[in-house]
Amino acid sequence: MRKSRLEAFSDGVIAILITIMVLELKVPHGEDWRALGPVVPGFLSYVLSFVYLGIYWNNHHHMLHTVEQITGSILWANLHLLFWLSLIPFTTAWMGENGFGAVPTAGYGVVLFMAAIAYFILQQRIIAAQGPNSLLRRAIGGDWKGRLSPVLYLIAILAAFRAAWLSQGIYVLVALIWLVPDRRIERVLADHHG
Amino acid sequence: MRKSRLEAFSDGVIAILITIMVLELKVPHGEDWRALGPVVPGFLSYVLSFVYLGIYWNNHHHMLHTVEQITGSILWANLHLLFWLSLIPFTTAWMGENGFGAVPTAGYGVVLFMAAIAYFILQQRIIAAQGPNSLLRRAIGGDWKGRLSPVLYLIAILAAFRAAWLSQGIYVLVALIWLVPDRRIERVLADHHG
Amino acid sequence: MRKSRLEAFSDGVIAILITIMVLELKVPHGEDWRALGPVVPGFLSYVLSFVYLGIYWNNHHHMLHTVEQITGSILWANLHLLFWLSLIPFTTAWMGENGFGAVPTAGYGVVLFMAAIAYFILQQRIIAAQGPNSLLRRAIGGDWKGRLSPVLYLIAILAAFRAAWLSQGIYVLVALIWLVPDRRIERVLADHHG
Amino acid sequence: MRKSRLEAFSDGVIAILITIMVLELKVPHGEDWRALGPVVPGFLSYVLSFVYLGIYWNNHHHMLHTVEQITGSILWANLHLLFWLSLIPFTTAWMGENGFGAVPTAGYGVVLFMAAIAYFILQQRIIAAQGPNSLLRRAIGGDWKGRLSPVLYLIAILAAFRAAWLSQGIYVLVALIWLVPDRRIERVLADHHG
Repeated sequence: MRKSRLEAFSDGVIAILITIMVLELKVPHGEDWRALGPVVPGFLSYVLSFVYLGIYWNNHHHMLHTVEQITGSILWANLHLLFWLSLIPFTTAWMGENGFGAVPTAGYGVVLFMAAIAYFILQQRIIAAQGPNSLLRRAIGGDWKGRLSPVLYLIAILAAFRAAWLSQGIYVLVALIWLVPDRRIERVLADHHG
Repeated sequence: MRKSRLEAFSDGVIAILITIMVLELKVPHGEDWRALGPVVPGFLSYVLSFVYLGIYWNNHHHMLHTVEQITGSILWANLHLLFWLSLIPFTTAWMGENGFGAVPTAGYGVVLFMAAIAYFILQQRIIAAQGPNSLLRRAIGGDWKGRLSPVLYLIAILAAFRAAWLSQGIYVLVALIWLVPDRRIERVLADHHG
Repeated sequence: MRKSRLEAFSDGVIAILITIMVLELKVPHGEDWRALGPVVPGFLSYVLSFVYLGIYWNNHHHMLHTVEQITGSILWANLHLLFWLSLIPFTTAWMGENGFGAVPTAGYGVVLFMAAIAYFILQQRIIAAQGPNSLLRRAIGGDWKGRLSPVLYLIAILAAFRAAWLSQGIYVLVALIWLVPDRRIERVLADHHG
Repeated sequence: MRKSRLEAFSDGVIAILITIMVLELKVPHGEDWRALGPVVPGFLSYVLSFVYLGIYWNNHHHMLHTVEQITGSILWANLHLLFWLSLIPFTTAWMGENGFGAVPTAGYGVVLFMAAIAYFILQQRIIAAQGPNSLLRRAIGGDWKGRLSPVLYLIAILAAFRAAWLSQGIYVLVALIWLVPDRRIERVLADHHG
């Protein structure tokens, strides 16, 4: 029961975040196609952030599938993750309104990096609570995606000051890595239940 | 269980979208009835979009009734649909603030068209997952509404540059087509359960 | 199951409406107490609308308790009610930003009046769906509150052009009428289950 | 069933509040790190309020665990609590945009104080409804945190006019007091169920 309320609360926050980003897309002041021009960078960063939040929602969903008991530290690790995700609309708008400048692009990466760390901490808290036979530990295995992503974010943050387009390419790349279906957790769960 | 979380997340996003559109209705700066004048176009496009989101919520609801297992591709097809729906507040505000000009009217149709395509893709993903005896395939039958709507949207997009009022009439027409009760899915489900 | 999704969607919309109104309270530009002065009318109309939305949530909740089957017409009558409720943040902000002027005060009443009518329609749709032994019909009995409220709103709308304070007094009065606990539905339900 | 809807509604409101605060973080107009300077106070007050709302969500969650029957007075005491919580984004933005000035800092404390009182009232309503063997009364015991917090808020409100940094320190202190895990309710519940 407590788990369902944690899920519902997290879903609510992520649903709101994914939706209010659209409020940051400034309605154009004009009625020809050129009026859309200044909106394009904002739109592109909106698409990227929408995909990231979708990935987080999806992964969060899978991860909580393995959980049976919510402890205090899981609860706060979860709020910590939601905190960093809640900054995504802010950095999305900053990057979008400044035409993908160097510093906003780096700032976007900083928030993604912190969210990845927060996700990792939440994962560790769950594994610790599950004890030596942790279902989640078996499910994530080597967790190469979870280990690679923060490294790529760090590279992107540094690269932003040389070539912001490179950083943006890295953000797209990390999203693609996660979009490729990853059935580890599903498989381990199926084994577990089967 | 996974299905209920997908439903709850989609409901959350649609509930937020249907509600935040009202934030785009600029509060009039004046206190006589004439101060409401500039709000009228925004209000009318708000009503139209409210009805469209209500229809999507209703149809989404019926469609998911037939689903038992959420696959990865259903999950992402659903997020893809939510993405296009999330742009409705943006095009609603653009159309409303520019007094139903040609380009914003066409842009409004583009988002409706893409949402209809995304809905179609989601439907196909569910049918594919259900296999040869797909309950949803039987339920939608010839799906003439689903096939006609994108064609009408395309006509409306093109018509916007000649006569924007014609496009807006088409948007109202499509909404009415969907508002007329359509008991196919309910009937097939009743047969299935009865 | 369908009913729980209708409840969840309605709860979501009302929760968002009750919350986004606070976004219309403009953050004061100053840091002494006098900076709060211009916020006072907005704050008072916020309190009033918060109470009204709380009453609607509460009554909606009780009414749906009596429902077992959601029909298409109940679903759309419910969306119709949510539509008028969704305009409350708009009229709240308009009334608040114009220091309770005559026309915004009347406009506030128009939305309350339409919401009351929409609530009445929803009630009738549920009673019709429940047939001759409608539990809801027995529960609401004479429904004097539901009949009196629209009349009082109409008086308030007309009075606004003479004495806006009188209209505002009527809005407060109607809220108080509903706040007084009304155990009819609870009693009939208890009889029904007991 | 009624309890689950009260929980869902409260969760929805708190999830929205915790999220819309980020809309008050004004997107910087510039693309170097210095553009972030004016955002820092707003960011710090956002962090503080995020933690407070997280604590309220967590405690609310535990408190409702002990409840079986929702009465009318519990329902309205809960809405009263949500009302004061709903003002947190407003005072957060006011304090953040004025660089932690004296009056906004005091105003922030007034809302925290009122929320603490509202929480206390809700707690008393639940204990009264549970009768002489109230599970919640045993769970909260002496409730020293609940009694100390309003006193500290009052001190902070008064201190704001002398030294706003002291008030802000007190707000951080109270948050830390609540963050320290407090297993009373969990323990009593475990005894109760075990």
